[in-house]
Amino acid sequence: MQFSSSLLENAVAEFAKLPGIGKKTALRLVLHLLKTEPEKVTAFGEAITRMRNEIKFCQRCFNVADADICSICSNSLRKQDMICVVENIRDVIAIESTQQYSGTYHILGGIISPLDGIGPDQLNIEALVQRVQKERIEEIIFALSPNIQGDTTIYYIQKKLQPLPVKVTTIARGIAFGGELEYADEMTLARSITNRLPVESYVANR
Amino acid sequence: MQFSSSLLENAVAEFAKLPGIGKKTALRLVLHLLKTEPEKVTAFGEAITRMRNEIKFCQRCFNVADADICSICSNSLRKQDMICVVENIRDVIAIESTQQYSGTYHILGGIISPLDGIGPDQLNIEALVQRVQKERIEEIIFALSPNIQGDTTIYYIQKKLQPLPVKVTTIARGIAFGGELEYADEMTLARSITNRLPVESYVANR
Repeated sequence: MQFSSSLLENAVAEFAKLPGIGKKTALRLVLHLLKTEPEKVTAFGEAITRMRNEIKFCQRCFNVADADICSICSNSLRKQDMICVVENIRDVIAIESTQQYSGTYHILGGIISPLDGIGPDQLNIEALVQRVQKERIEEIIFALSPNIQGDTTIYYIQKKLQPLPVKVTTIARGIAFGGELEYADEMTLARSITNRLPVESYVANR
Repeated sequence: MQFSSSLLENAVAEFAKLPGIGKKTALRLVLHLLKTEPEKVTAFGEAITRMRNEIKFCQRCFNVADADICSICSNSLRKQDMICVVENIRDVIAIESTQQYSGTYHILGGIISPLDGIGPDQLNIEALVQRVQKERIEEIIFALSPNIQGDTTIYYIQKKLQPLPVKVTTIARGIAFGGELEYADEMTLARSITNRLPVESYVANR
């Protein structure tokens, strides 16, 4: 693409660096901003820059936060003795959106994946174990990806937690609501048969 | 979506204001920036803000520019007596990408469209007529959208230019290269038969 303005070219190049945004989409976005009032564009630029430079990570659960402790960890209405272990911030947002969980979180920052060179030391596992040792934690719920790496991570952490008096659970795996049996993979279907539920508890949870 | 950080929430909200970007995509982009080095994110924010606040519009052709006159208008290697009339900046970029045009441009800022409330007065038509009167323009090439509004605009401007000694042409319309005859619309096919070319000139242009 040829541009008659280096300011425009620069802005398009910056947008095109974002994942999933090509040169044509970048140009469309920049031309949209060009038609937007200058104050709004300045607010856009500042929101992005401030986010990156001022955001903090909660010292307790490693979630994004505006202060040293995130709003979930500092909320006395939430069950502070319950920890949901997740891979990343996106998972926290997904679980929070369900409005079904009222405990705290612990963000590992990934899962054990030797092929990608990610071992237990790169993750916030030691901090989780220390947290369980120091605080009075009742229950730990694993909400990790349902694959080999996720299971390996659960197994590794569970072994570390074994000496401690804490209940360890994992989120249910089975056929997704609205999913069709014939399209479910064998592994999921097999697990959902093995971990079948009494109908009373199923009906009660509806 | 629920966020544990207002800085994150704000950045996602700003991205989601852009056309074609929903909340989920906005979150994906912001989480990408969160993993990027702070200096690069600052550069991103500054490129956008500077673009909006410092960009100028060429006083001659209304193209985006870094100075009062754009780089195309101030380039003595380009044919300054040839004007290609286009709707917007995007069309200039598309034509420049072909590297087949060596004249200047004139950006109308839209086309005459009474249904959308756009009349000749809202467009840079008067400036074009004055430009043809003042400068020694040899040829004007219309490169407008091939629809009723485009044709109306061409007709309107052509009438204004009639008293002036300037050659007026329009870009060729016909079957697109690689297009199949059977899928072409009737209007295009009819026009391409009416405006048929001698094979010699066709072969010469290949």
